[in-house]
Amino acid sequence: MAMTGVLRPGHAQLRVLDLEESVRFYTDIFGLVETGRDDSGRVYFKCHNERDHHSIILRQAERAGMDFYGFKVLDDATLAKLERDLNDYGVPTERIPAGDLLETGERVRFVAPTGHTFELYAHKSDVGDGLGYENPHVIIDGRKGISPLRMDHWQIHGSDLDGSRDLFINVLGFSLVEKIVTEDGKTDIACWLSCSNKAHDIAFVRDERDDTLHHAAYLLESWEHVLKAADLMTLYDVSVDIGPLRHGITRGTTVYAFDPSGNRFETFCGGYNFYPDMKPYIWTEDQMGTAVFYHTRELNERFLTVVT
Amino acid sequence: MAMTGVLRPGHAQLRVLDLEESVRFYTDIFGLVETGRDDSGRVYFKCHNERDHHSIILRQAERAGMDFYGFKVLDDATLAKLERDLNDYGVPTERIPAGDLLETGERVRFVAPTGHTFELYAHKSDVGDGLGYENPHVIIDGRKGISPLRMDHWQIHGSDLDGSRDLFINVLGFSLVEKIVTEDGKTDIACWLSCSNKAHDIAFVRDERDDTLHHAAYLLESWEHVLKAADLMTLYDVSVDIGPLRHGITRGTTVYAFDPSGNRFETFCGGYNFYPDMKPYIWTEDQMGTAVFYHTRELNERFLTVVT
Amino acid sequence: MAMTGVLRPGHAQLRVLDLEESVRFYTDIFGLVETGRDDSGRVYFKCHNERDHHSIILRQAERAGMDFYGFKVLDDATLAKLERDLNDYGVPTERIPAGDLLETGERVRFVAPTGHTFELYAHKSDVGDGLGYENPHVIIDGRKGISPLRMDHWQIHGSDLDGSRDLFINVLGFSLVEKIVTEDGKTDIACWLSCSNKAHDIAFVRDERDDTLHHAAYLLESWEHVLKAADLMTLYDVSVDIGPLRHGITRGTTVYAFDPSGNRFETFCGGYNFYPDMKPYIWTEDQMGTAVFYHTRELNERFLTVVT
Amino acid sequence: MAMTGVLRPGHAQLRVLDLEESVRFYTDIFGLVETGRDDSGRVYFKCHNERDHHSIILRQAERAGMDFYGFKVLDDATLAKLERDLNDYGVPTERIPAGDLLETGERVRFVAPTGHTFELYAHKSDVGDGLGYENPHVIIDGRKGISPLRMDHWQIHGSDLDGSRDLFINVLGFSLVEKIVTEDGKTDIACWLSCSNKAHDIAFVRDERDDTLHHAAYLLESWEHVLKAADLMTLYDVSVDIGPLRHGITRGTTVYAFDPSGNRFETFCGGYNFYPDMKPYIWTEDQMGTAVFYHTRELNERFLTVVT
Repeated sequence: MAMTGVLRPGHAQLRVLDLEESVRFYTDIFGLVETGRDDSGRVYFKCHNERDHHSIILRQAERAGMDFYGFKVLDDATLAKLERDLNDYGVPTERIPAGDLLETGERVRFVAPTGHTFELYAHKSDVGDGLGYENPHVIIDGRKGISPLRMDHWQIHGSDLDGSRDLFINVLGFSLVEKIVTEDGKTDIACWLSCSNKAHDIAFVRDERDDTLHHAAYLLESWEHVLKAADLMTLYDVSVDIGPLRHGITRGTTVYAFDPSGNRFETFCGGYNFYPDMKPYIWTEDQMGTAVFYHTRELNERFLTVVT
Repeated sequence: MAMTGVLRPGHAQLRVLDLEESVRFYTDIFGLVETGRDDSGRVYFKCHNERDHHSIILRQAERAGMDFYGFKVLDDATLAKLERDLNDYGVPTERIPAGDLLETGERVRFVAPTGHTFELYAHKSDVGDGLGYENPHVIIDGRKGISPLRMDHWQIHGSDLDGSRDLFINVLGFSLVEKIVTEDGKTDIACWLSCSNKAHDIAFVRDERDDTLHHAAYLLESWEHVLKAADLMTLYDVSVDIGPLRHGITRGTTVYAFDPSGNRFETFCGGYNFYPDMKPYIWTEDQMGTAVFYHTRELNERFLTVVT
Repeated sequence: MAMTGVLRPGHAQLRVLDLEESVRFYTDIFGLVETGRDDSGRVYFKCHNERDHHSIILRQAERAGMDFYGFKVLDDATLAKLERDLNDYGVPTERIPAGDLLETGERVRFVAPTGHTFELYAHKSDVGDGLGYENPHVIIDGRKGISPLRMDHWQIHGSDLDGSRDLFINVLGFSLVEKIVTEDGKTDIACWLSCSNKAHDIAFVRDERDDTLHHAAYLLESWEHVLKAADLMTLYDVSVDIGPLRHGITRGTTVYAFDPSGNRFETFCGGYNFYPDMKPYIWTEDQMGTAVFYHTRELNERFLTVVT
Repeated sequence: MAMTGVLRPGHAQLRVLDLEESVRFYTDIFGLVETGRDDSGRVYFKCHNERDHHSIILRQAERAGMDFYGFKVLDDATLAKLERDLNDYGVPTERIPAGDLLETGERVRFVAPTGHTFELYAHKSDVGDGLGYENPHVIIDGRKGISPLRMDHWQIHGSDLDGSRDLFINVLGFSLVEKIVTEDGKTDIACWLSCSNKAHDIAFVRDERDDTLHHAAYLLESWEHVLKAADLMTLYDVSVDIGPLRHGITRGTTVYAFDPSGNRFETFCGGYNFYPDMKPYIWTEDQMGTAVFYHTRELNERFLTVVT
């Protein structure tokens, strides 16, 4: 958790082109747990090891992409303080009433300089992690599909990277963990920020296409589960972007693929433990390939260009 | 990091019976990096992936055990505030001057109700993680011995568990993550506390023997590395206590063994991610075996009785 | 495969005390596939990655243990030749007609000097490995329970170890891979034999209790699956003997546990590749603990004494 | 081992463009053990877990590629019989005297229809596997570089695939394990053959370039070691072709890369156990991508075209 009380990426609302096809994908192949549907037709999912009611919400739309990104904060006082801090920083905020999202408290919404809509909230109902809170077991048998442990982070694109980066660091209390800089060292091409001991909770990439999503990432247990995820993608004919592979940045391992609407997702594992006293790793532009795809040491066109 | 600015277990000073034999053990078999020796004969070590100058200090003594346990905090202001908060809570503190430990700033020392000496400090020199901070690699080749990534946590014993637990929660900002309670549910037998997103940074066990160490734990990359650690223990004739195994508590995997002075150590991997909005897992006394050794479901005498 | 044409451990008939309880155990917890039941009430199972109709047959009986152990051979000519070779060696044989076991050809049965009943057979119907033979996939999703890949080997006990060992080597063409010898080096305490490139297909242990089973072993994919097997044993309250652990002998990794009738089974992974030009590893009696349980370096009473 | 007594791929002589650079590569980065040099300047290597004196021999030459491929057979009688069988099949053979290769007995050499030179031999000195044959340990500490367990198999190209395939099956006793066939099902594009319980010991691919090497493969312990191999390739700036990945064929996992002379090698793990009673898996031409690269489901140009 950041010193400010920002806990973690908590929920995000994903636009899909065919809701029922997407529900089948996220249930049977991706292995999420459906936890509810609301009056507006949205479908709510959690990962099996998450406790809160949902982490991903599907909304049928004409265009793929992410509607908004929500961070859970410690409590109501934290929410109120961060709202004031945002306003003091010159960022207007809006209060979304409790209950607009199922089992979720009031949300404070704002738009970041890269055009993305973010939310902060302090309450979401605990529906259990499937293990129980008294004498829990360590495993759920017979999980089907990719079945990630939890939502992990997002990589999102927009032109005013500096603005969003500074907002997250100066107001929300995120730390800069790694970045790729241009050859003159003066401009950040991309940056990885953490509000926790994870190597990243969000990444911003400089890109003219504001308010776009590169990928939403979900956590797996091990490199062996990364392999299984890739195997299942072929078994179920999921469109793979690239992987299995290792990142130079974060040292995580991963596969990237696309959901039926073309939204890229990442099945991720690893990454070192980060603490705010650590200075950031700096990657130079000429090593960008190695930074992202450590083994092949070169980026592919699709990874660079496809966003939703 | 806790909201208070306590970062992590940062250093500990271990008493060993034969210094040079212990240096050989911690270098050649345990795979730590020696980083310095001071005028009083103490030898300093770091794990290969740690950045700060040292995490474990060996001191020759007549009796095994741990002299003190140090937590790094965010900065000087945090150190000063926590010092005041301790005093306000009725805990006397002592300032140890910078330089008493090599490459380490001023330390605020206090004795917890369980009799253990703790320290807080804000500065220790960054000597690098062996990967470099610009375009780092992800691996160091040819590491010998068990070679853990970093120091992870301590389990320590004392009679006033409630006192130390409350001090860590109320003053230092730790969260209660798991605990074992007596059959009537009224008394904590043991508790696991976190100041981070790790499932534990310290564990207290109720035990008449105040100021004792059950084990110091070090982090490994994977379950496969846990196996390798166990293999190396036999190759090098290290005295193994128990493992490889899975804990019910934290869901971590591990081997326990003893250094040449009889200090127990743990080579640990795993554990779920913890956030302060999560309610604690409660284990009942009759399930204590499963809580600790998930597979055998029973404790062994040596694990219960040997402390230093 | 041995030069003689002996392929592998192919089937075994296990006695269980409560058939339906055992069927539930081997189906839901052990994760085998039931493939048939015959007129005498026997229930047939295969592992998911096996192709032949069955590898394990359950028979309700008053006493646990194994009725017989069957090795598949290459073809009818091999079967006839081995039958003659057995007779020439002084071992009487009996022909069991095709169809006595479902989907299985004629079997040549004999009793080995340790009192165990063995069978050779050349035909068992191929019912598929669940992946298909044209453009197969590499994975079956949603497997429940321990779900081993295939039956791997048996460890069986009897007094005339020398007799059975020599019969398997001299007539059936097995190779001696490893053995434990008494302190004077003159007597084999146990021996591991292979008819393949596996480090063992059968092990004989000297024991006054003739015709007894120590364990039947089943193969898992990886050390991570060994951990999962152990986790599932606790989840399903299976009685664990010992593990997860590494063997010195074969270098395999494993967990030992008991089925509801008290028959010990092993969920095994690893073991080096053996070739018949390799000389055997010899273990001395004083290192027997390390030979069997490489990490703890000592045997436990239950492992030494319980057979069925 | 095949019924004929062919044991395994035993040695191969690789042409390299700069001998000392290659020795450094195969020692420091690939992690082989140099075991000797002969009067003609050839340098001999074994993998750490191999027992025979060498498996790979480097020879300086103007052109990369493999001089010859040797299979070890069971004994002198086997060697003599296979020599006769080859001659009876119409294949001329040549005897290379013992000692021509260090620590190696007489070799029977022949040229296969695809133009490759093969050898059979029965003797090569056992120099130990580094673990010892009495009370061996299970691990060697501090291995540097990729450090494979042993040489595993070769994929080689030539126009008369049918001729070499039939020779290996009909005379040497190999089994057909998998193949890719043209759309009309009449022509083998590639075939995988085994003389053991491995899923392949050699693969032939139809290609106009006779006597060419696609890759020599070396065995690793686990998928985690495959990742480590890939990490080390980037650490040491080795030219990677593709990987880490899963094959559809054999279900093995792997990375492909090039040595300093441009010879492709594979660091391989896995593959199911094969027995000669198993019918081959058939892959159709339209699924060739999935057959070879299971996750991406498409071949890359370099993999298809570069041979030495």
